[in-house]
Amino acid sequence: MSIKTLEFSLEKIAADLVNGDRRSLARALSIVEDGGDEAAWLVRRLFPYAGRAHLIGITGPPGVGKSTLVDALISQIRSDGLKVGVLAIDPSSPFSGGAILGDRIRMQGHTLDKNVFIRSMANRGHSGGTALATYDAVRMMEAAGNQVVIIETVGVGQSELAIAETADTTVLVLMPGSGDDVQAIKSGIMEIGDVFVVNKGDLPGANKTASEILASLELSNRGQAWKQPVQVTNAETNQNVNAVWLSIQEHKKYLDESNQLTERRKRRVESELTELVADIARKNLKDSLEHSSGVQSVLQKMLRQEMDPHCAAEAVMEDLFGKSRQPAVE
Amino acid sequence: MSIKTLEFSLEKIAADLVNGDRRSLARALSIVEDGGDEAAWLVRRLFPYAGRAHLIGITGPPGVGKSTLVDALISQIRSDGLKVGVLAIDPSSPFSGGAILGDRIRMQGHTLDKNVFIRSMANRGHSGGTALATYDAVRMMEAAGNQVVIIETVGVGQSELAIAETADTTVLVLMPGSGDDVQAIKSGIMEIGDVFVVNKGDLPGANKTASEILASLELSNRGQAWKQPVQVTNAETNQNVNAVWLSIQEHKKYLDESNQLTERRKRRVESELTELVADIARKNLKDSLEHSSGVQSVLQKMLRQEMDPHCAAEAVMEDLFGKSRQPAVE
Repeated sequence: MSIKTLEFSLEKIAADLVNGDRRSLARALSIVEDGGDEAAWLVRRLFPYAGRAHLIGITGPPGVGKSTLVDALISQIRSDGLKVGVLAIDPSSPFSGGAILGDRIRMQGHTLDKNVFIRSMANRGHSGGTALATYDAVRMMEAAGNQVVIIETVGVGQSELAIAETADTTVLVLMPGSGDDVQAIKSGIMEIGDVFVVNKGDLPGANKTASEILASLELSNRGQAWKQPVQVTNAETNQNVNAVWLSIQEHKKYLDESNQLTERRKRRVESELTELVADIARKNLKDSLEHSSGVQSVLQKMLRQEMDPHCAAEAVMEDLFGKSRQPAVE
Repeated sequence: MSIKTLEFSLEKIAADLVNGDRRSLARALSIVEDGGDEAAWLVRRLFPYAGRAHLIGITGPPGVGKSTLVDALISQIRSDGLKVGVLAIDPSSPFSGGAILGDRIRMQGHTLDKNVFIRSMANRGHSGGTALATYDAVRMMEAAGNQVVIIETVGVGQSELAIAETADTTVLVLMPGSGDDVQAIKSGIMEIGDVFVVNKGDLPGANKTASEILASLELSNRGQAWKQPVQVTNAETNQNVNAVWLSIQEHKKYLDESNQLTERRKRRVESELTELVADIARKNLKDSLEHSSGVQSVLQKMLRQEMDPHCAAEAVMEDLFGKSRQPAVE
C-alpha cells in the first residue's frame, strides 16, 4: 500500500472512530497494540481528542474477582448514562492459566450495549510494550467518546501494577483471609489504592480484613486530605458495588477540586515519556547491532571479556548518540 | 565514606570473593542488586573472572515444584563435585503469596555445604532492574568459583522468563494434567526449553503429558541437531532427577561441540546491552525532568495536549542527545 493510500485509510479509521464507530475503534486498538509508524500516526491525529475520560485502574491479586467487579461496575456506570471502555491488560506471563478467557466471556453480558467497549490487551513480549500500548489505547478509547475508561490489570507483574497506578483513581481489590491483604499491607502497596474493595464479602473474615486495612491506612495516612474508603462487596451478587462506584466518583471530585488531577496526569506523562525514550534508545541499538561497526566491536569485546557491560553501554551510547550523558544542570 | 576508602572496601570484597569467601559473595550480591556506581565498580573489577560457569535456567508455571527440583538437582551436581550457586528470581509482583519463603527455607538443607550458595533476588521495582541485576549477580557467582549457576525464576513475568531463556541450558518444568502443558504448547514457549521435565510424576496423566510434549516437539523440531529430552520426575522423592542432570550435561556437551554456546552468549550480551542502553536513556531523562528547561517545556506541551507523546519523545531525545536517531547504515 502506498503512503498516500495508507494515510487515507488511517484517516478514515480516525474520523469514524471520533464519530463513535465501534469497528474503527477496534481497528485503532489493534494498530496501537502493534506499535510502529501507523500507531504513531493515529496517536498524533487523535491526541487532541484524548485526555478527557476518568481513568479508573482496577488491580489486585489473582482470584479476588476483579473481572466480576468490573462487570458489576459497568452496570453502575451505565445506569448513570456514561459511556465506558474497558482495557483488560492480560498477564505478561505465557503461563496464564485458564481463567482469563472465561472472565472475558462473562463480561460479554454487556456486548449488546453500544456504550460499553471491552478489549483485552496482551503483552506481546515487546519490552515495555504493554505499558506504552496501554497509554495509546486509552487515547483511542477517549477519542471514541468514552467518558470512563477502566484499566483492569489481569496480570500481576510490576508493569501491570504501574499501569493501574497511573490511572486517575486506583481501586485495589482484595479478598478475606487469603493472606494477600496482609501481604499488601506489608509490601507497602497500600499507598497506591485510592479506593479499597474487600470482595467476596460472603467469605468469613471479610469485616476483619476491612478493619485491618482501615487501621493500616489510618497509620500511614495522617494529614492526607483524601481518606481512602474501604468497601466490602460481593460482586457476584452485586452487593455494595454501588458504594464502590460512589467512592470512585467522590475521589474524582476530590481530584478535580484539589490540584491532584494535574499532579497525577503530570506523573503519568513523565512515566510515558521515560518509557518512550528508553524504547527509542533500545530500537536504535537494535538497528545498530546489525549495521554499526562501532557497536559490533563493543559487542565482540564484551564477548571476549575485554570490556565490562557498563563500560560497553556507555561506549555504545557514545557511538549511537555522540555522548552518553547530558550534564545534569544546564 | 571517601572514594578512596570506598574503593578500598570494595577491593577487599572483590579479593575475598575471588578467594571463595561466602560473606563477601553475599555482600557483592546485595551491591549488584542495588545497582549504581558501586555495582558498576565491582562488575568492572570481577568481569575477567566471569563467563565460565554453566548457566542453567529453570522455569515453568507456579506450583509445578521448581524449587523442589532445584533442591534435588543441587544434590546431583554436588555428587559430581561441582560448586553451585542458585539465584532464585522472586516474583515481580507485590502479590506474591506465601509459598516462596517456604521454598527458600526448604532449600536450606544445603546451607551447611560450603559449595552451595543460594540467593533470592527480588525485583525492587526498578524498571528492567531484575534482568540487569541478574546478569551481574551471575558474574559475582562465577567470580566466586561456582562452576554451575542455576537461575530459578519463581516469578511468572515476561522478564523472568527472558532471564531463564538467556541461560546456556533452559529447563522447562511442567506437571501433569494442569492444562499448563497444553497452554505452553499453544503459546509457543516450547521452543525455549532445552530439557523438559514433567514433575509430580506420581500424579495421573504424567506419561500422557510427556508424550504430548514429545509429539509437539517432534512437529516443531525437524532438522534441529539437539533433540530436547522429556524427563518425568518426582522431585519430592528424588525420582529420575539424575536423568534430568544427565540431560543438562548432554546439552552442555552439545553446546560446546557446536557453535551454539557462542551463539547463546552473543544473544545474552546483546540483550543485556540493549537493556543497559535503555536504562541509561531512562536515567538521563529522569535527571533532565528536574533540570532541563527543554524537557520541561516538552512535558508542559504534552500536558496541554499540544504535542503528542511520540513527537515529544523524539524532541526529548534531540534535547538529551543532540539527535534522536542514528542513520541505520554507516
